[in-house]
Amino acid sequence: MAKNLSVSVLMDFYGGLLTDRQRGALELYYNQDFSLAEIAENMDISRQGVRDFIKRGEKQLDEFEAALGLLKRFSEISGELEKVADGLGELRKMRLPANADALAKELSEIISKIENDL
Amino acid sequence: MAKNLSVSVLMDFYGGLLTDRQRGALELYYNQDFSLAEIAENMDISRQGVRDFIKRGEKQLDEFEAALGLLKRFSEISGELEKVADGLGELRKMRLPANADALAKELSEIISKIENDL
Repeated sequence: MAKNLSVSVLMDFYGGLLTDRQRGALELYYNQDFSLAEIAENMDISRQGVRDFIKRGEKQLDEFEAALGLLKRFSEISGELEKVADGLGELRKMRLPANADALAKELSEIISKIENDL
Repeated sequence: MAKNLSVSVLMDFYGGLLTDRQRGALELYYNQDFSLAEIAENMDISRQGVRDFIKRGEKQLDEFEAALGLLKRFSEISGELEKVADGLGELRKMRLPANADALAKELSEIISKIENDL
């Protein structure tokens, strides 16, 4: 079972719609890098049970994204923010008056904050 | 039944998780301003049936937001973007070199685009 990086991201968006056990299994597997055997022991079920939990959870996450597309929406915003961040960087290389440079710096910091929150 | 503006916004985020009929009833009621009687005729069910559809749909939308908080997340981003938009406006009042002003204008436009997409 190949680990799929985007599952972590989908979990971040839609994890709240999974059952506690499903979310738990996916978190151990994707975010804490447990093996199937370790999760099986942890959850007191078989390795095949863990595999099923994970497969089912992944499928549901994909279905949520297909229905809502919020990851896609956030990704697009993130791409646009990157352009603004780059632009503010360029702007600050343009011999601005000191007050303008300070303001541009402040705006860069807000953009970084938004990018971290996305 | 008082119309709740935020239902339209919640629909925009989570509508894809409702059934077609539920989404249909909520859309007619909230986005197209149909009366309960008109929706009842349109869907060929009783007014009480429409009322139930809408109440149940609203409840589910609230539950999705309680579980995922994506509206809250987007609103926070939107507030931060507003600060950046205002800041770019201020910046452009600061006698920037022409190339810097043109770039600031471009960045303002990207921010407006993101705000529209949110």
